[in-house]
Amino acid sequence: MIQKPTLILDKGKCLQNIKRMSEKVNKSNVNFRPHFKTHQSAVIANWYKKFNVNSIAVSSVDMAVYFADNDWSDITIAFPVNILEIEKINILAKKIVLNLLVESIDSVVFLKNNLKHKVGIFIKIDIGYHRTGLDVDDISTIDKIIEISDSSENIELKGFLSHAGHTYHAKSKEEIKNIYYESVSKLNVLKKRYNNRNLIISYGDTPSCSLINDFSDVDEIRPGNFVFYDLMQYKLQSCTFDDIAVVMACPVVAKHKKRNEIIIYGGAVHFSKEYLLHNNERFYGYLVNFDFKNKKWDIKNQKNYLSSVSQEHGVLKVEEEVFENINIGNIIGIIPVHSCLTVNLMKNLMTFDNEVIETMR
Amino acid sequence: MIQKPTLILDKGKCLQNIKRMSEKVNKSNVNFRPHFKTHQSAVIANWYKKFNVNSIAVSSVDMAVYFADNDWSDITIAFPVNILEIEKINILAKKIVLNLLVESIDSVVFLKNNLKHKVGIFIKIDIGYHRTGLDVDDISTIDKIIEISDSSENIELKGFLSHAGHTYHAKSKEEIKNIYYESVSKLNVLKKRYNNRNLIISYGDTPSCSLINDFSDVDEIRPGNFVFYDLMQYKLQSCTFDDIAVVMACPVVAKHKKRNEIIIYGGAVHFSKEYLLHNNERFYGYLVNFDFKNKKWDIKNQKNYLSSVSQEHGVLKVEEEVFENINIGNIIGIIPVHSCLTVNLMKNLMTFDNEVIETMR
Repeated sequence: MIQKPTLILDKGKCLQNIKRMSEKVNKSNVNFRPHFKTHQSAVIANWYKKFNVNSIAVSSVDMAVYFADNDWSDITIAFPVNILEIEKINILAKKIVLNLLVESIDSVVFLKNNLKHKVGIFIKIDIGYHRTGLDVDDISTIDKIIEISDSSENIELKGFLSHAGHTYHAKSKEEIKNIYYESVSKLNVLKKRYNNRNLIISYGDTPSCSLINDFSDVDEIRPGNFVFYDLMQYKLQSCTFDDIAVVMACPVVAKHKKRNEIIIYGGAVHFSKEYLLHNNERFYGYLVNFDFKNKKWDIKNQKNYLSSVSQEHGVLKVEEEVFENINIGNIIGIIPVHSCLTVNLMKNLMTFDNEVIETMR
Repeated sequence: MIQKPTLILDKGKCLQNIKRMSEKVNKSNVNFRPHFKTHQSAVIANWYKKFNVNSIAVSSVDMAVYFADNDWSDITIAFPVNILEIEKINILAKKIVLNLLVESIDSVVFLKNNLKHKVGIFIKIDIGYHRTGLDVDDISTIDKIIEISDSSENIELKGFLSHAGHTYHAKSKEEIKNIYYESVSKLNVLKKRYNNRNLIISYGDTPSCSLINDFSDVDEIRPGNFVFYDLMQYKLQSCTFDDIAVVMACPVVAKHKKRNEIIIYGGAVHFSKEYLLHNNERFYGYLVNFDFKNKKWDIKNQKNYLSSVSQEHGVLKVEEEVFENINIGNIIGIIPVHSCLTVNLMKNLMTFDNEVIETMR
C-alpha cells in the first residue's frame, strides 16, 4: 500500500512511447540514440532493447559509467566534455564506444594531450537555443577543432550535434516544427561543407522529435523525455495527456475549507520546483482521478492543481466539489511538470504491478 | 581533487552558526529543538551535541526513523501527521519520545484508535503563513482535539506549534521581527486560555530566530536553515554573507565570449530550481572567489551570477574582466539560493579537510 510520495509508472504507456518513437525513427532510416537522463534506470534501459536500440546518450560521465556497467557499449555524453574527469573518460574509452562533445580549442587540445584510448567527438553547434555550443557560422573554430582532431590518434571526428532547447519556449506546434526545419537546414549546410568526411548530424529534443515524423534530413535523433512525457510536454502539445506515463501518488494530510486547499505530503524534494504558468498562476502539477487498483488515471480538469510546494508540503487548490470528496489519509495523484527532475529526486518508480524500479544513485 | 559538482562545507562557519543560535536560546532559557531537515546528516547532527542539544525536529517519518537510528531520542515530526505511516509511527513511539502535529479532528481520532504507544502531540496553529494549521481563533476545533486527546491513553497534548513561513516574503528586518512579535502574542493568548494545562509554544523559522535575540515569550524554537544559511537568508538579512557555510564547487566546461557567459557542470539536479530576483532577473546563485587550498571564499559582487539552470548545465553571467580570468577546467564556487534543497539533491558535503559527510538516503 502506498504510504508516502511514490512515483507511479504506467509501464504500458511508457513502452508505447518508446515504440512510437522507435517506429518513426526506423521509418526515417536514421539512428536512434535515446537520451537516458530522464529515467536514469538500467531496468527501463532494457525495455529499449526490444526495439533494437543499441546506442544511447547520457548527460554526465557518471551516468555513462552507470550504463556502461549495465552493458551499454555505445554511449554519447551529450554535455560539453568536463576535462577534469579525464581519468574516468579514459577508463570508459577503453571499454566502450564513447563519444564526447567539444566546442572549444582548449578542450580538444586537452583531449589530444590526455586521451589514452580512442573516442569519437561531436562538435556541439548552437542552432538558436543560445545555451552552449559554437555558432553554426564559426567556421574558423570548427576548422581548428577538426585540424586538432585530425592530428590526434585518439580522436575521431564523428559529426555535429545540436539540442534545440528553444522549442521549450515555443507557443505552437508550428513554431516547434519550424525550429526543427530551420535548424536542420543550417546543420546540413555545415555537413555539406565537410562532405568529404562522412560526418553525421545528431539532433535531439523531445518536442521536435515528437512532432516531426520524417527525420531523414538528420542522421541520428536523441530525444529523452518522451519516455515518460509530463505536463510541460503536454502544454507544448508534444504529447496527449494519455501519453504521460508517470504520476505522483501523495497522501493527503490536511484540508482547509475556507481556501478549498488540500495539503499533501509531496513537495519540492519530490516534484522539484519546476512550474508552469496558467492564467498567470504558477502550477506545479495537475490533480488526476487516480485509481491504483484499476491501474489508471485521468485528468479532472485544469482547475485542480498543485499551487505551491515547500520542502515536503504541497498545496493543492481544488474546486469545492472536489474538496468535499478528498479526505485526510487518501492517496491522490498528481502529474508532474517535469518528469526528468522528478525522477532524479525520487530515485525510484513503482509500476501498477508493484514492481519497484530503481534509478542510478 | 574536485572533479564534478561538489558541495563544500565550511565546518568552522557551520559550528559558529550552531554556537550562536544555541547561546541565544540558552540565554533566553527556552528549549532548543533545531530542525534537521536542512542537513539531514547524522554526522552534522552530532555537532549539536557539543551544545547540549537533545531534542530535534524533522519533516518526515523517514527522517525521524533515520535520526532515531542514530541515537536521537526526542523527535518532533514537524509536519501534519501522515496517518498512512501509522506502523512506522508506532515503532518509533515505542522507542523514543515522539511528538506529532495534528490540525484536524480526523487525524486525532485516527491516532486515538491506532496508536499503540504514547506520543506527544502539538496542535499546528496558522499564525499568518496560510500554508497549513488551524486558525488561532478556531477554538471549537482546538477544544475538540483536546477533548479527544484527553480521552486517549496514548496521546499527551504538549502545546501549540507554529511556523512563520511568511517571514520569507518580508521586505525588511523590521517586518520579520514584527511577524515574530505579533505571532508570539497570538500564541500566548491561546496558551493562556488553556493555562491549567502546562502547554508550551514551539516556534520556528530561521529568519525570525536569526533576528530575534530574546525568545523568552516562547518555550521552544525550531530553526533549521541557520546551520548553513544561503542566499535567500542573506537577501532577507537573516545572516551576513560570511555566515553562509556552504558553497557549490563546479567545473567550467565552456565559455561564450559574445555573451560573457560561462557554462558550468552544475544544474537543477545540483542546485535545485529555486531562484531569487535581482533587478527583475532570476538568479540561482552568486559566483564567489573560491580558494579551496586556503579554505575560504568571498563574494566578488552581485554582477556575477548563475542566470539559468537546466538538468546538468548552469549558465553563469559574468563581467568581462571576470570572464577573462575563468578558464575551461577551472573549478568555480557558487553560493546556492536554498541550501535545504541543494543538500537534499547532493546527498553529501565535503569539508575543506576532505571529509565527506553523507546525508540520509
